[in-house]
Amino acid sequence: MQLGMIGLGRMGANLVRRVMRDGHQCVVFDRDADAVHALADEGATGVSSTAELAAAMTGPRAVWVMVPAGAVTTSVIDELAEVLSPGDIVIDGGNSYYRDDLTHAKTLSEKGIHLLDCGTSGGVWGRDRGYCLMVGGDADAFAAVESVFASIAPGVDAAARTPGRDGEPARSERGYLHCGPSGAGHFVKMVHNGIEYGMMAALAEGLNILHNADIGTRPSESDAETAPLDHPEYYRYDIDVAEVSEVWRRGSVVESWLLDLTASALHSSPDLSEFTGHVSDSGEGRWTAIAAIDEGVPAPVLTAALYSRFASRDLDQFADKALSAMRKQFGGHDEKPAQ
Amino acid sequence: MQLGMIGLGRMGANLVRRVMRDGHQCVVFDRDADAVHALADEGATGVSSTAELAAAMTGPRAVWVMVPAGAVTTSVIDELAEVLSPGDIVIDGGNSYYRDDLTHAKTLSEKGIHLLDCGTSGGVWGRDRGYCLMVGGDADAFAAVESVFASIAPGVDAAARTPGRDGEPARSERGYLHCGPSGAGHFVKMVHNGIEYGMMAALAEGLNILHNADIGTRPSESDAETAPLDHPEYYRYDIDVAEVSEVWRRGSVVESWLLDLTASALHSSPDLSEFTGHVSDSGEGRWTAIAAIDEGVPAPVLTAALYSRFASRDLDQFADKALSAMRKQFGGHDEKPAQ
Amino acid sequence: MQLGMIGLGRMGANLVRRVMRDGHQCVVFDRDADAVHALADEGATGVSSTAELAAAMTGPRAVWVMVPAGAVTTSVIDELAEVLSPGDIVIDGGNSYYRDDLTHAKTLSEKGIHLLDCGTSGGVWGRDRGYCLMVGGDADAFAAVESVFASIAPGVDAAARTPGRDGEPARSERGYLHCGPSGAGHFVKMVHNGIEYGMMAALAEGLNILHNADIGTRPSESDAETAPLDHPEYYRYDIDVAEVSEVWRRGSVVESWLLDLTASALHSSPDLSEFTGHVSDSGEGRWTAIAAIDEGVPAPVLTAALYSRFASRDLDQFADKALSAMRKQFGGHDEKPAQ
Amino acid sequence: MQLGMIGLGRMGANLVRRVMRDGHQCVVFDRDADAVHALADEGATGVSSTAELAAAMTGPRAVWVMVPAGAVTTSVIDELAEVLSPGDIVIDGGNSYYRDDLTHAKTLSEKGIHLLDCGTSGGVWGRDRGYCLMVGGDADAFAAVESVFASIAPGVDAAARTPGRDGEPARSERGYLHCGPSGAGHFVKMVHNGIEYGMMAALAEGLNILHNADIGTRPSESDAETAPLDHPEYYRYDIDVAEVSEVWRRGSVVESWLLDLTASALHSSPDLSEFTGHVSDSGEGRWTAIAAIDEGVPAPVLTAALYSRFASRDLDQFADKALSAMRKQFGGHDEKPAQ
Repeated sequence: MQLGMIGLGRMGANLVRRVMRDGHQCVVFDRDADAVHALADEGATGVSSTAELAAAMTGPRAVWVMVPAGAVTTSVIDELAEVLSPGDIVIDGGNSYYRDDLTHAKTLSEKGIHLLDCGTSGGVWGRDRGYCLMVGGDADAFAAVESVFASIAPGVDAAARTPGRDGEPARSERGYLHCGPSGAGHFVKMVHNGIEYGMMAALAEGLNILHNADIGTRPSESDAETAPLDHPEYYRYDIDVAEVSEVWRRGSVVESWLLDLTASALHSSPDLSEFTGHVSDSGEGRWTAIAAIDEGVPAPVLTAALYSRFASRDLDQFADKALSAMRKQFGGHDEKPAQ
Repeated sequence: MQLGMIGLGRMGANLVRRVMRDGHQCVVFDRDADAVHALADEGATGVSSTAELAAAMTGPRAVWVMVPAGAVTTSVIDELAEVLSPGDIVIDGGNSYYRDDLTHAKTLSEKGIHLLDCGTSGGVWGRDRGYCLMVGGDADAFAAVESVFASIAPGVDAAARTPGRDGEPARSERGYLHCGPSGAGHFVKMVHNGIEYGMMAALAEGLNILHNADIGTRPSESDAETAPLDHPEYYRYDIDVAEVSEVWRRGSVVESWLLDLTASALHSSPDLSEFTGHVSDSGEGRWTAIAAIDEGVPAPVLTAALYSRFASRDLDQFADKALSAMRKQFGGHDEKPAQ
Repeated sequence: MQLGMIGLGRMGANLVRRVMRDGHQCVVFDRDADAVHALADEGATGVSSTAELAAAMTGPRAVWVMVPAGAVTTSVIDELAEVLSPGDIVIDGGNSYYRDDLTHAKTLSEKGIHLLDCGTSGGVWGRDRGYCLMVGGDADAFAAVESVFASIAPGVDAAARTPGRDGEPARSERGYLHCGPSGAGHFVKMVHNGIEYGMMAALAEGLNILHNADIGTRPSESDAETAPLDHPEYYRYDIDVAEVSEVWRRGSVVESWLLDLTASALHSSPDLSEFTGHVSDSGEGRWTAIAAIDEGVPAPVLTAALYSRFASRDLDQFADKALSAMRKQFGGHDEKPAQ
Repeated sequence: MQLGMIGLGRMGANLVRRVMRDGHQCVVFDRDADAVHALADEGATGVSSTAELAAAMTGPRAVWVMVPAGAVTTSVIDELAEVLSPGDIVIDGGNSYYRDDLTHAKTLSEKGIHLLDCGTSGGVWGRDRGYCLMVGGDADAFAAVESVFASIAPGVDAAARTPGRDGEPARSERGYLHCGPSGAGHFVKMVHNGIEYGMMAALAEGLNILHNADIGTRPSESDAETAPLDHPEYYRYDIDVAEVSEVWRRGSVVESWLLDLTASALHSSPDLSEFTGHVSDSGEGRWTAIAAIDEGVPAPVLTAALYSRFASRDLDQFADKALSAMRKQFGGHDEKPAQ
């Protein structure tokens, strides 16, 4: 079938490549003309505006939007509402907040256009590895473009089949899933990213404990301001965390893609000295925590992971100063310089 | 080579099978004679006491101990100190606290016997999948029994090689690692399990958020005691968490063995109704948190995961009652029944 | 001056009493006619509708709204927008979400009416102890009704003056504060309640640790599923937590009103056996956590306190079952009954 | 009665002053002769060694030890075991780990000497305010020195009596308590400090949320690496946190001594700019968390407070770098400089 793609960044361009590899035709647009030319060289039809894209496609059209979440996505969807026709389908494959999907779907449905919200996981590796797709919206619209999702997803062979599953592989086994009505796809993707934060933090905290397992051999301070290390003899290990992350990749309970990536990063840079440790967050972790709070279900691990990122960016500084100020007040404790 | 095995439970018996499969000879003992006979039928030499085991082996001996951590392990090691000879090697493959290794190593070294502490990960699946081995102790002793570790470990083919690694695979790539002096193996295994707790909790919390994504469709209560749901329209999703855990297995960032197992559990029991939700913990998560505290490094995610397990067993009840009592005192708030 | 009061529940009625005690006149309305009659007997002017209330007052009017947050408050404010006149002042003294203040202020300002949002702390004790008032909105409107706030607040003598403060007491020292523009009062009150959750949980967790300090004397289980207690000799204390909470009331660092209330609750009921431990939350703790997340600042303590309440209501159950299911999958671990 | 005091730092000297004020005699020793002379000038008997102190007192002696916890306390207790006589009483008023009390008590009991472990709260303010005393050890020994505890404690008038308590005030109401056998006093003090950490963090986090309530007015970045602020209009408040902490001191639910101190600190330094925010911890918070873990009871709030202090000292840096490294690996995300 034919697919339109708006947004040819790292993700969008690789999606087009996977779709074309399966014989689909692509009409592509990006504000950056070079990005359009690059894909045209690979066989896509390049256009230079949203309106041109609509004109170059035969209906009913399917147009994938792969641009930054928020204002940019909203403006593209508003444009598409103008240039597309009733029965067309828009797929928002970006990291939109699922609440925005409800607004966007309303905008489009007033013109008879369907919106599918599609959480797309896979990062820079997806071109070869395939992308995991979590889709929300109308079931008929989903069925109409299913062959595109199938081309983008990794396929059933990407993992061993779950015991008890046999016969024709379910969609979920091929790497894409219709999760429910509008917003359901991005909701599931949001929680996926929340879990990702938690898993990343679990690994990072554990590696940090290993990294500091030699604390009993470091010169220690012991005064009224500092808890002494009770048993330095228990902390005399000089652990090679790169080798540990490698050994865990085979046979351990923590086997995971994130561990694979960690082992790779530590192999090339055992001290990670090129990083400062100011960890960004791009929204989904926040939204996941807010969803947990709204639902009234506890998410202490996912939220702790989020807060560690905030703390890494020093936005806890006033709180820390307040603690030092209280200690000064009640105990006359002077601050000590950081270790 | 020849390996003695003491303890033929689920783990011990499968270790013997992997070792024999590679042509090594095994002399095996368990207090349960049936377990001994079963392995004797598979080709091992069965004996009926620790002393017999020592007598049946030729020196220098290598004896693997695979019995419950704590008092049982200590008593077996005390026995071995009596019946083994200088130059022999004891491998403690159980989940011993690494601090106990220091005591055990001292007991044995007084008789000239070496102790290797070996964290063994792999659970009930290890027989086929291989076990991930994290070893501490004397480097020469490690080298002397390396071929046994190699037989037990999964081997390099169990995972794609990390980019940048080539040539002869390192030990870590074959699934076993000498981590450092006495205790280092169990220290690394302890942290591995701590990470496991964190990853498990990350998945469990995320699935719970998905499971409750329909909270806006449930009859809600709103009174002075209860926070109303501000936007019920955002929580109207009836998510199939079994299908979600399946789709994440291919192409997503949270791909992991724990996710594979979760997908399997949810496929066979979507409601998990055979579980009560009282989650046990077997020590390593506690020890990991204590190590973080001793080192002075934060481990909020790993500790939150541990505390969730404690809360699942209702040991937080007095704290909860105290909260209700305070609310009653300052606000006249009466308790409400659980939802 | 003259004050209208809508809502004569526990809080509203006591506010009226404090205001009348200082010689102000009150015109009062509640849907419950008995509540109106009770206060009329104490000297207030009772009316039977919002419109009557407006008619019974001379302009510029000041009307305090003390009804449940959410839909009820919104409907009262909508009514007042109809019956009041330009220049009048509405004070929302309830626990409204500060974001709703922005909407309510807009509704009223279209009629030339001012809204002051007023966080009111003090609970059932406020009638005698006074209420702490955190006010947002137009500064002139605030000044116009300041004498009412002064009557409701505890006054400077309620606490020793802070070192360095002398001369005419600031408003903050008298127990009320203009915090900023619309919403600022409820924002500060929201964070106040967030801190309250954290302090309550700190006390409750500490008391629970004391309550369980005898765990080394209880029959213990030790098997592969359960972490054994390493040093039972360290946990043989039978602590009287009621006496401990009493002794901390004098001279300790944790002296606080919440501790006073806790000591009182434990004195009358040392086991708190009349409570089930299902702890409600009325919204502000959630909103505080969401504000922290929006701001990108970590609030691990406040959020952990919130999540403990969620867990006390068993909404973590599916997560706990998922953990047990994973343990069963990878380790063959069967669940154990709760302790 | 007569009291010996070893250790005349801030705490020890003020204890002597309170004891002498009630007519007791004090024999005092410190390694710093100036400290001894200063108290001799105020009426104490100064001595220049532990042995001299023993000689200057009439039996049965009561000797208070007020020196740094750990090695220093142990060495003083070892000395006292040599110079005191059977029936004498040693009071360890420092912040010893309660587990050390068990060792110290054994050392002394072999000589027939009693040890009372006494948690002493009150900081630099205790001289006037009195100290809260939590005592463990033999009940007869406690009774023998009770008059000293009564002099040091604040006395019943320091707080309003708890409702339901009348007649002769209990010891707890006078500010001191016999908590149980050896170690019980320091155990209760340990948990007190754990709660203190939690309360401090609750206040600090809340103030930080207020401090950043203007985040919607700051220039914001929004790119693929950064979560945009969804609703800047909700975060336009410029809150005066010093005034807020003052207003909460009267009538609010968070009234507490820690709030009083916070208000004082913020009044003299609204920006707390003289602090760096590297917050020390002196051990009890760690021990409280370890006790919770050993008991198997969750303490998420107290532990989060502890971990925030660790993070403030940058010992989480390797973990943060690992997170950035993973993000770089899977998403090609480059780190951003700290805000």
